[in-house]
Amino acid sequence: MKKFIFTCGDVNGIGPEILIKAINKIYHPTKSKIYLLCPSEIFGLTSKIIKPIFPFKVEKKFSDDKTDKVIIIDLAKGEQHLGEATKQSGQLSYKAIKISFDLAYKGKINAIITAPISKTALKFAGIKYPGHTEMYSGWCKVNNYMMMFLSTDFKCGLVTIHEPIKNLHKIITENKIRKSIDTIVNSLLNDFGIIKPSIAVLGLNPHAGENGNIGREEEKIIKPALEKSKYKDLCAGPFVPDAFFANKLYLKYDLVLGMYHDQLLIPFKLLNFNNGVNYTAGLPIVRTSPDHGTAFDIAGKGIADESSIIDAFFWADRISDARKK
Amino acid sequence: MKKFIFTCGDVNGIGPEILIKAINKIYHPTKSKIYLLCPSEIFGLTSKIIKPIFPFKVEKKFSDDKTDKVIIIDLAKGEQHLGEATKQSGQLSYKAIKISFDLAYKGKINAIITAPISKTALKFAGIKYPGHTEMYSGWCKVNNYMMMFLSTDFKCGLVTIHEPIKNLHKIITENKIRKSIDTIVNSLLNDFGIIKPSIAVLGLNPHAGENGNIGREEEKIIKPALEKSKYKDLCAGPFVPDAFFANKLYLKYDLVLGMYHDQLLIPFKLLNFNNGVNYTAGLPIVRTSPDHGTAFDIAGKGIADESSIIDAFFWADRISDARKK
Repeated sequence: MKKFIFTCGDVNGIGPEILIKAINKIYHPTKSKIYLLCPSEIFGLTSKIIKPIFPFKVEKKFSDDKTDKVIIIDLAKGEQHLGEATKQSGQLSYKAIKISFDLAYKGKINAIITAPISKTALKFAGIKYPGHTEMYSGWCKVNNYMMMFLSTDFKCGLVTIHEPIKNLHKIITENKIRKSIDTIVNSLLNDFGIIKPSIAVLGLNPHAGENGNIGREEEKIIKPALEKSKYKDLCAGPFVPDAFFANKLYLKYDLVLGMYHDQLLIPFKLLNFNNGVNYTAGLPIVRTSPDHGTAFDIAGKGIADESSIIDAFFWADRISDARKK
Repeated sequence: MKKFIFTCGDVNGIGPEILIKAINKIYHPTKSKIYLLCPSEIFGLTSKIIKPIFPFKVEKKFSDDKTDKVIIIDLAKGEQHLGEATKQSGQLSYKAIKISFDLAYKGKINAIITAPISKTALKFAGIKYPGHTEMYSGWCKVNNYMMMFLSTDFKCGLVTIHEPIKNLHKIITENKIRKSIDTIVNSLLNDFGIIKPSIAVLGLNPHAGENGNIGREEEKIIKPALEKSKYKDLCAGPFVPDAFFANKLYLKYDLVLGMYHDQLLIPFKLLNFNNGVNYTAGLPIVRTSPDHGTAFDIAGKGIADESSIIDAFFWADRISDARKK
């Protein structure tokens, strides 16, 4: 039976409540074994808002438990200050992520699903990593990872992630695009079972530079990168970004490779509000997460939507199945 | 009766055929007088593909015709080479635009609706302007014009238009944003009759810079521009761009001001394929156009969709009504 571990995310955000809501819906006694990394006090407090309808037991650490119960791994003492980023919530977020990594990396679990964290809380806790992706890839010692966003009709990957617009032209290189394509092709093959994938690559500039009239990166960097890629035959582009979405061409490709964050996140979130999933491709472990944040403003109200973290679980399940094959 | 003039756009693209299709639908003998700037040969050739069902007559130049006929202004001899950008098609495009400007500027017509042109053809013809917006604003001697995109639920304006991503951080200044807001407020008041408009301003960087961690323009330029604007109370932002669209906040504001082309054109075209309209705000004349291009690949097949140019006509009609009040 496959084993999945959920991290609590920032305990002062919507993490704990969407986790109980989600496990209520996805729990199945014989299909998968679920572990939840969360301070037991916080699980208890959250249970008063959202009642767990799955059987569970609290353990101090991971064990290869044979019961059909969900295992709550009580990772540390924890207080809850709903709606606030605190040093302690940053420490707890980090601890859960680290334990999940160790378990996945040693092969004790099949996949990790992470609830949202607060970057501010991580900073308060003195954690140097800006987010999940950097932690898992750093610990895996992998440089060529990629942030992907998954939905049924539209999968996409980013050449650059959290970079100021000002720096894009310095960071986007021919080599970086070629490596991104390599990571994508391997992921589409191994994680999604697509043998001959098709990849659409977007331009950087308005009208994809219009033959060099509005920026030269398409001519100087993107086209040569595609031309020299060993997966040249699988790639098309660079496409004019707005026309690509106007014509709904994302429906025709297995994956869209974009040059910067908002070029893809704006259309992805517009099309997939509540059911988009974030996936870090290129790692030896499987990790997915919802594409929303901690939503401090509604934390503890029991109204947060669990759809995205449920989808994150299903994608983690599919990806770990595909990897076995 | 209000008078509207349509320009033929690039005669080798879909311009002539969408114009006949559109006038077939919008023609009304008593509501408005329609003029079409198009070589008569090309109007004749196009009539074999799309039959005009409106009464018309061909004239050599504009006259204050009192009949209920559509007036085809035979602006020059013209050949058609469907699907090709040619020197002649560039010359014809330009001539139609210039005549339309002169008529609108002298107050002989109420509004201009322009069919799409080819920038390549303009170049072949030695025209120095890159597009309609620059021509009309240049001839009007107006610097603070703005490219806006209109639909029922979502109106937006751009601080920068056809600029390489690389240059954005140099071009986006506090002054430019403040002037953009002034142009918007005047346009929303005078062109759309909105007395107390609400304007959402987007950030430039991913996560709107996340308090300066991902770029400093939000802190150094955008926030001070909003703070110092005389229309400060009408503006909100800078918003996180992807979250803004994820939460469909464009539905809550009269206009969204974006920092660069694809930040708004990607979501606008995704939401408004076939019915988006381009409008140049800030000019003494009224000019709208469809938000698509010449579509050389399907020119002359009679299959091009006329919805966007019809919407352009209706917006031109509404704007010229609002200006009268």
